[in-house]
Amino acid sequence: MISVVLIGTGNVAQNLFQAFSKVNDVEVKQVIGRTKSHLNFARATTTIETDFDKLLPADLYVLAISDDAIASVSMRIKETNGLIVHTSGGSSLEALSIHKRAGVFYPLQTFTKGKIISFENLPICIEANNTKDLEILRKLGETLSNRVVNISTEKRKILHLAAVFVNNFTNYMYSIGEDICAENEVDFNLLQPLIEETAHKLNVLSPKEAQTGPAKRGDQQTLQTHLEIIKKKHQRELYTLLSNAIKSNHGEEL
Amino acid sequence: MISVVLIGTGNVAQNLFQAFSKVNDVEVKQVIGRTKSHLNFARATTTIETDFDKLLPADLYVLAISDDAIASVSMRIKETNGLIVHTSGGSSLEALSIHKRAGVFYPLQTFTKGKIISFENLPICIEANNTKDLEILRKLGETLSNRVVNISTEKRKILHLAAVFVNNFTNYMYSIGEDICAENEVDFNLLQPLIEETAHKLNVLSPKEAQTGPAKRGDQQTLQTHLEIIKKKHQRELYTLLSNAIKSNHGEEL
Repeated sequence: MISVVLIGTGNVAQNLFQAFSKVNDVEVKQVIGRTKSHLNFARATTTIETDFDKLLPADLYVLAISDDAIASVSMRIKETNGLIVHTSGGSSLEALSIHKRAGVFYPLQTFTKGKIISFENLPICIEANNTKDLEILRKLGETLSNRVVNISTEKRKILHLAAVFVNNFTNYMYSIGEDICAENEVDFNLLQPLIEETAHKLNVLSPKEAQTGPAKRGDQQTLQTHLEIIKKKHQRELYTLLSNAIKSNHGEEL
Repeated sequence: MISVVLIGTGNVAQNLFQAFSKVNDVEVKQVIGRTKSHLNFARATTTIETDFDKLLPADLYVLAISDDAIASVSMRIKETNGLIVHTSGGSSLEALSIHKRAGVFYPLQTFTKGKIISFENLPICIEANNTKDLEILRKLGETLSNRVVNISTEKRKILHLAAVFVNNFTNYMYSIGEDICAENEVDFNLLQPLIEETAHKLNVLSPKEAQTGPAKRGDQQTLQTHLEIIKKKHQRELYTLLSNAIKSNHGEEL
């Protein structure tokens, strides 16, 4: 049995709480957060607390909080022999350097308020400053997922950067699509199956192989038509920039 | 029973062929293509033909071919009373203007070589120049999908433009993510669940609501770290441009 104190009340904390709660080998002894009302998600099944001085002893303290808060909040965990981990892709192991036993437990996923997702196939990237603690994190990870991987701080930062492109910037592409539809009174929801299949097809093709569209084909007439339709200047500039990038990306092959 | 001659041998043609073949109310009488070997997908269950002079009579001729070829290939369909449709998002109904009975039957999806997908929830956008033919296309569409919608040429072009953002440009974001991973010897496949969830969460949130990341949060430190990691100049420029766009998009709300 691994005993866990979970610190945080956001989407990652809530998803981890739900996931751990379903596992026999893990006991969430306590959930800590600054604001009592934000702890309601855990109230029914475990101890909730707003006062760090009342921290319970546990094998593991999981900081599911924003990057900026990791260093300062970790300082409030005192006199413990437990392993302290954060759940952030963008923060180094060093962020917890005041603790003898520190680690990272990073579920590589986007978490949405009120949406509880399955951890089963979700990569959990782990790191620790000694092999014994790494083994504890692997054991914990494997209670949730079949895809627990050792990833150094350096490589985790690469994953986090790549995630900005495939998640944040991709979502921004969706929002431009929505904007163009709204401006022209077209139902954006018609694009949902296309959006999901574009993501899903990467299971069988690499993105470079999967690239299609007027820019890839060098279809100047469609490119021209699209530039005439787009009303906002910054969207036109982005359309041109990305089309040229795709052209040169695929032109290199010739 | 609706009889269909399918013209084309690409991914759309092959997917439509498979989909129609499963439907009792539709008979694919013939598949036509320029190259005999490309017609193998249909050989076992229908007539295949490379010679347009041997076109069979049918209720409907479906041109599942590239935009550039629509006008010229449609001219090769002579002396028919059938309804002639193309399957393109980017082409107007006018592209078939030499025919009395013309229409559009546009399945809004990305089709991949060798990957047969379900049409069940896939929007099929239809258009015709008279209500009787529109009714035929609706009937045909409803044999495949529960989401058949009347869309004018003008609105279909908007959808096609929005599709460039949510499909082509999104895929380009994936390819940059892959590139950054490859350069740093990190497994891009670790990002697959994130990629799929980013697409899937639009079922519950709009893209604007779903936006997350360092640019949205105004997290200058992470933005700076990422710019230091990115090796390629054009990727750095794109990172800055998209981050600024997200900042200003969300700054407007303040």
